[in-house]
Amino acid sequence: MGSIDRRRVVRIDGEERRAARGDHVAVEEPLEILVDGAVVSTTMRTPGHDVELALGWCVSEGVIAGLDDLVTAKSCFEKSPSLEELDGDEALRRVVEVNTTHRRTVHARLHTTSSACGICGSDAIATTLERCSTSLPTDHTQFPARVIHQLPAAMRGAQRHFDSSGGMHAAALFEPDGSVVCVREDVGRHNAVDKVIGWGLQNLGLPLAGLGLQVSGRASAELVHKAAIAGIPLLTAVSAPTTLAVDLAREAGLTLVGFVRDNSFNVYAGEERISTIAT
Amino acid sequence: MGSIDRRRVVRIDGEERRAARGDHVAVEEPLEILVDGAVVSTTMRTPGHDVELALGWCVSEGVIAGLDDLVTAKSCFEKSPSLEELDGDEALRRVVEVNTTHRRTVHARLHTTSSACGICGSDAIATTLERCSTSLPTDHTQFPARVIHQLPAAMRGAQRHFDSSGGMHAAALFEPDGSVVCVREDVGRHNAVDKVIGWGLQNLGLPLAGLGLQVSGRASAELVHKAAIAGIPLLTAVSAPTTLAVDLAREAGLTLVGFVRDNSFNVYAGEERISTIAT
Repeated sequence: MGSIDRRRVVRIDGEERRAARGDHVAVEEPLEILVDGAVVSTTMRTPGHDVELALGWCVSEGVIAGLDDLVTAKSCFEKSPSLEELDGDEALRRVVEVNTTHRRTVHARLHTTSSACGICGSDAIATTLERCSTSLPTDHTQFPARVIHQLPAAMRGAQRHFDSSGGMHAAALFEPDGSVVCVREDVGRHNAVDKVIGWGLQNLGLPLAGLGLQVSGRASAELVHKAAIAGIPLLTAVSAPTTLAVDLAREAGLTLVGFVRDNSFNVYAGEERISTIAT
Repeated sequence: MGSIDRRRVVRIDGEERRAARGDHVAVEEPLEILVDGAVVSTTMRTPGHDVELALGWCVSEGVIAGLDDLVTAKSCFEKSPSLEELDGDEALRRVVEVNTTHRRTVHARLHTTSSACGICGSDAIATTLERCSTSLPTDHTQFPARVIHQLPAAMRGAQRHFDSSGGMHAAALFEPDGSVVCVREDVGRHNAVDKVIGWGLQNLGLPLAGLGLQVSGRASAELVHKAAIAGIPLLTAVSAPTTLAVDLAREAGLTLVGFVRDNSFNVYAGEERISTIAT
């Protein structure tokens, strides 16, 4: 199945009821992530780039710190007895199997910290600081303001599905000159971020130093956590951050930008990485 | 702590760097939910209405089916050793303790289905159908199109914090005549929905038949799941639904409306509950 499917819709304009028609809708489906044989997460995601999603999730959760920790990652389908009962047909379960070089450590850690929502827990900041990339304090990359102003339009241009479904979040990795190196979409913004981090792990290796991460919605603590662990020095969001996102960014030494719109934006942390032309 | 706090922000307008000032930011903090003595969820939420949030979460997860299953629910603070280590100060952990009448059943079920993200798993539809309110198929409430057109403005008017932080999601319960009976805000839209369902449990009892639920963002399967279990016959969203949200609504017999804006909207399921004035 693709990222977009069609569903029947009746449109109401004022008091007028239009004839039913098919409309594009963003696909949401469960994906199971297995690490060393154990199910560690079932996430609702948009199909596509499942291995990237699983790898990015593993990085965010501290399961793998880089390619050295990884043996294999493969996407597969398995028969699902529970769905079979429901439909009377044979149904398939989507699974990504990740195998690591350090089986025992991972299971012990997941037992206490695993969550499909990413970071959760009173020690959110402490956990992130423990795991976040050591490259951040020495990453002095400069990002020009004019590049940040152009990001929403650049990302929208690179998105394949947003315009048809109106229901996709997006995340993009970009260079300080504004070139978008990877853009991924998903109904969940944390999934979109996991996908670009998984892409970065596979294609560039960690840390993703010297790059920026642009997201289409708000900036929660979870997204700052993901960026910090992957070693991305700048997170920019089209909309608002939360208090914990700001506090976490400051502690981790990450630059956090919000409300990127109408040729202006807010810098909540790490403003020294943002350069402007003296006027 | 309140729902909104201040953080230092540097605003960049074009190439101009404004002087730093304090700005309103939506608070995000962890809340632990204990059911019968065991931690079943740690969710990142905006403080306020914590007991409602915990009760709504318990309804969504099938922990309690109504007030009869509930003994006590109380909000408390506990010292947190891990935060103490981080700050060198005494830190407090926010907890809601829920006690039920059927301790053993709950623990067995949570062991397999608990997730801070709500529904997850290949049997998402089957699980929802098992638990969803039996009142839905016989709930023939009619919601006039003109009421739905007015919902975004009505909810925005009842929101306390959106305008200052720009970072809150909201959920509102409303009557078929458009009266908003409860509105709650949170950085997480699933939390905002849990809060209004928790309010409904306490003040009206379940099922929440004859009411509509308006949400400020998109309609994921998780939100349809929560509405269906609480017995709410109509879910309306300002933005797009997902395929699984549409499929789940159809199976559960719930009316699902999306893209409520500019005096028009789309009906994806259960259009028989939407009435229009013949023109």
